Amino acid sequence: MRAIQITGFGGPEVLVQAEIPDPAPRDGELLIEVSRAGVNYADTHQAENSYLSETALPVVPGGEVVGRTPDGRRVVAMLASGGYAERAVARPPQTFDVPDGVDDTTALSMVVQGATAWLLLRKSVHLEPGETVVVHAAAGGVGSIVVQLAKAWGAGTVIATASTEDKRKLALDLGADVAVDSTAEDMTAVLREANGGRRVDVVLDMTGGRVTDQSVAALAPFGRLAFYGMASRETPNPVKPANLLRHSTAVAGMWLPHAYLLPGNVMGVAMAELFALVGEDRLRVVPGGEYPLSQARRAHEDLRARRTTGKLVLDPSR
Amino acid sequence: MRAIQITGFGGPEVLVQAEIPDPAPRDGELLIEVSRAGVNYADTHQAENSYLSETALPVVPGGEVVGRTPDGRRVVAMLASGGYAERAVARPPQTFDVPDGVDDTTALSMVVQGATAWLLLRKSVHLEPGETVVVHAAAGGVGSIVVQLAKAWGAGTVIATASTEDKRKLALDLGADVAVDSTAEDMTAVLREANGGRRVDVVLDMTGGRVTDQSVAALAPFGRLAFYGMASRETPNPVKPANLLRHSTAVAGMWLPHAYLLPGNVMGVAMAELFALVGEDRLRVVPGGEYPLSQARRAHEDLRARRTTGKLVLDPSR
Repeated sequence: MRAIQITGFGGPEVLVQAEIPDPAPRDGELLIEVSRAGVNYADTHQAENSYLSETALPVVPGGEVVGRTPDGRRVVAMLASGGYAERAVARPPQTFDVPDGVDDTTALSMVVQGATAWLLLRKSVHLEPGETVVVHAAAGGVGSIVVQLAKAWGAGTVIATASTEDKRKLALDLGADVAVDSTAEDMTAVLREANGGRRVDVVLDMTGGRVTDQSVAALAPFGRLAFYGMASRETPNPVKPANLLRHSTAVAGMWLPHAYLLPGNVMGVAMAELFALVGEDRLRVVPGGEYPLSQARRAHEDLRARRTTGKLVLDPSR
Repeated sequence: MRAIQITGFGGPEVLVQAEIPDPAPRDGELLIEVSRAGVNYADTHQAENSYLSETALPVVPGGEVVGRTPDGRRVVAMLASGGYAERAVARPPQTFDVPDGVDDTTALSMVVQGATAWLLLRKSVHLEPGETVVVHAAAGGVGSIVVQLAKAWGAGTVIATASTEDKRKLALDLGADVAVDSTAEDMTAVLREANGGRRVDVVLDMTGGRVTDQSVAALAPFGRLAFYGMASRETPNPVKPANLLRHSTAVAGMWLPHAYLLPGNVMGVAMAELFALVGEDRLRVVPGGEYPLSQARRAHEDLRARRTTGKLVLDPSR
């Protein structure tokens, strides 16, 4: 089958198309004929082996696919790797049926980005109605869903940050109440000002570096920041528990694969709620463009250069 | 009136009885004829000026009193200082009517320790039913209430830590499922073992130092540690946001006075819920002993030496 295979770590240039054998399902795994594969920011870390989980070579990157099982089920699945290909194998607990009427790009956006947004709000910060929510990278894959979920779940003011006028306009279209420039020098001051002079209750952050530091400093008493990625590749400052005590604030980290370790069928509940909101037109996905599988490299280049908005997908038939 | 007055910071020896003028209520403050004054761990920090808020001298220490207002209301109040005296003044938002049948020691235990326990579980860690909860210093003022609230609110296993056999027995009597020695060398291993080999969901910690560090390391995915005091006087290690991400864990700080900055009548709700649980015999306070006001110094000595269990109160008539 046709796939993208990485044989040496590095930037987008390591994404090379290859002809490799079909993957073989083991231990109850499902074979999926891939209709579209999703591109995630995490994939760029996987390519350079800077991701949380170590990657062994050679590897077919890609953590999510939508397609059909041999018995005709239309499913979306989260994978450790193997998505950038014509066929992939998935474990049943990480495979979800896609309701009729939900398109490929939307389905793909739910299994990683939607689930991440759901978990951040429900399990990392435990959003309460009326709270002010700051969404960094609000035009991004997770950010654009967080904005909508926060509003759907009764947040008060939702403050979006994004790097361009177009992205800020998108965040406002999705329901954000205010949109501010994510490149601002003093994010603490910008967030307080956007919240009418008051500190903020919740921050969702995948930026890292000083954006994280300055966002922690903008938290109100009982405010929580959830840190779920480091797109800037810059480490935030360590947090002193005594300082958290001094301000009654909290910092949480979140990495999606851990959700599968939770007791109960948390991910099944999350996916059902997300698809229900999609069906009610209360949650929509921003398509970011479709690339032929053969041009996966260009997709990573565009993503890393922050030229894209919305969900990127690969078409394995091209 | 008779009061304990500190004119120079230090240990218990600075608690000296003095005859000083009655406090004068200002700006709607209430004058309270003190029936009993509560002794808190924070008072020992106030005496040595190691507390979060700076203390100006001379000062009458003491953050909570129960007694009667001039119009006959029986009230309990949280104060910034001034509790160790025959009369005190309190701000109305921090003053709560005491239901009939609730004794002085129980009422005093609710306004700081009960409220702290309520806020930790509801606002800092957002306890969910079924979760494992570790309560350090489980025989202490806050800890003994956390154990009971956690069980009343549907926690799964409640693991108590305490330094002596008697204290561990008390924690078990209050409803803890397991009680372990708080002086264990490897708290991470002890907590996992107490939880059947699994990591824990929630830790409430007022110890600091390595107990905090080792407890953070014992958190399960989506686990939260709330840090609300540093009785060991040892600073825990700073926490790296990237490590929180790597484990999907959270660290929260909590300082009670911030609760009064929350929107809505959070503290009124908390006190009503706490008094209701007391009324239903689902929450009880462990009396730790009554000292004459003149022996406040001995109360601090006993508290700092960890010789006490339960709520200490001062009788200003003696």
